[in-house]
Amino acid sequence: MKFAPLSYNSGMKLPYVPGDDLLNRSRFSVILVNPENQENIGLVARAMKNTGFSCLRVVGKFKLTAEALRTAVHSTDILKKAPFYDSLPKAVSDLNLVFGSTVRLRKAFKVITIDEAVSRIKTYPLDTKIGLVFGNERTGLSDSELRQANFIYFIPQVSRQPSYNLAAAVLITLYTLFRESATNLLSQVPPPISRKEQTDCIELILKKLEKRGFLHETNREHVTDLLYDLFGRLALSERDRRFLTAVFNKGLDKE
Amino acid sequence: MKFAPLSYNSGMKLPYVPGDDLLNRSRFSVILVNPENQENIGLVARAMKNTGFSCLRVVGKFKLTAEALRTAVHSTDILKKAPFYDSLPKAVSDLNLVFGSTVRLRKAFKVITIDEAVSRIKTYPLDTKIGLVFGNERTGLSDSELRQANFIYFIPQVSRQPSYNLAAAVLITLYTLFRESATNLLSQVPPPISRKEQTDCIELILKKLEKRGFLHETNREHVTDLLYDLFGRLALSERDRRFLTAVFNKGLDKE
Repeated sequence: MKFAPLSYNSGMKLPYVPGDDLLNRSRFSVILVNPENQENIGLVARAMKNTGFSCLRVVGKFKLTAEALRTAVHSTDILKKAPFYDSLPKAVSDLNLVFGSTVRLRKAFKVITIDEAVSRIKTYPLDTKIGLVFGNERTGLSDSELRQANFIYFIPQVSRQPSYNLAAAVLITLYTLFRESATNLLSQVPPPISRKEQTDCIELILKKLEKRGFLHETNREHVTDLLYDLFGRLALSERDRRFLTAVFNKGLDKE
Repeated sequence: MKFAPLSYNSGMKLPYVPGDDLLNRSRFSVILVNPENQENIGLVARAMKNTGFSCLRVVGKFKLTAEALRTAVHSTDILKKAPFYDSLPKAVSDLNLVFGSTVRLRKAFKVITIDEAVSRIKTYPLDTKIGLVFGNERTGLSDSELRQANFIYFIPQVSRQPSYNLAAAVLITLYTLFRESATNLLSQVPPPISRKEQTDCIELILKKLEKRGFLHETNREHVTDLLYDLFGRLALSERDRRFLTAVFNKGLDKE
């Protein structure tokens, strides 16, 4: 079977979301408090790059190692410009609104969900500087560290154990914000052709099937219905139409 | 300042979502095709555990190593029962609906977003067996592998590079399904007390402030408004009421 080459690319956009930034992501800082695992730090940088965040702050006295750089694929710039602080109060002092993440209930603090945290963020002006604080992998944030937060949130999980990995918690948080931040997260699929063109295409196929003896008096109505149902559900695009036309015009004729 | 110990825990539920499973998560299989990085495989198992998925399938000829077990915190049971297949067609043969993930556009395949994929899943019966297929870290799924998928989806990202890490792509996919799967993802916060109780509490505070000379003829109206605004916004819970009552009854009186 041969048919004319088709332009498959027409109308297809790239599956990423440049530019669009309804939440002003540049005002967000991701703050890691005493992270232990260098690979996690690199994965956090990568998750930030994936979702369009760029300011990383680290609380703790240590150096980034090659392990962090290895997992920060295409994101080492974020690591390299990340400032270090010796305490959380210093790391958040210039911010306006601080969110601390927790995986467990706290005795003295009210805990909201990540979705409520996002709703709350959206009620403040777009230049409000926001910190997202994540604790150490094993211990999380201490109560004294939580006092630096305006709000404390958790990410729903199925069971008590295991908790989300540190980089996973950052990723889900940033992805949730990213979803809110961009209007055009829907894929840019080729639009369906006009209904008349769709019908013409289906009728063409019917004619071809009739010519080949597949369609006859006793099954005509039923087969027609089935064909309309099947190709109707595809909501044919121009690409689909050209492909099907080629198949039924040339493919079947040549057999 | 001293006040009677308060029961902070009343009305607070644990921040996890047991049981609730509107999507029947047990029918989903996560299928990794030729994964290279053992740590990723362990992180995938952990992400599955976090979000309530349990069936992992692996295509490829290799053994799980200690690295995979190390990152599969509290999730090694998923790894240990994961079957291995020598080809993707074999790994999906008993499933009904297969979703392949991609980070780039494909010439011949229509690509939908992860949110559209979830919408589509919800249109099929709850016993439809579903496979979620993820390719190798470097190469993704080949076109020939994508032919095994009914639908191909991508996770929105900001720029072409970097793509999501393999474990990150699985996590976002499963978390998105998990969010759809549970009705009670909202935090179970203590309900506000009756509006009368809220007002009584605010009036009590006003009285205390008056007694202390803070409230007087010239500022009465304004301070009253400010106080109603401030404590109104808190939508006081029983815990809040008891705490504030203690602070203003005992705390201030003792000074």
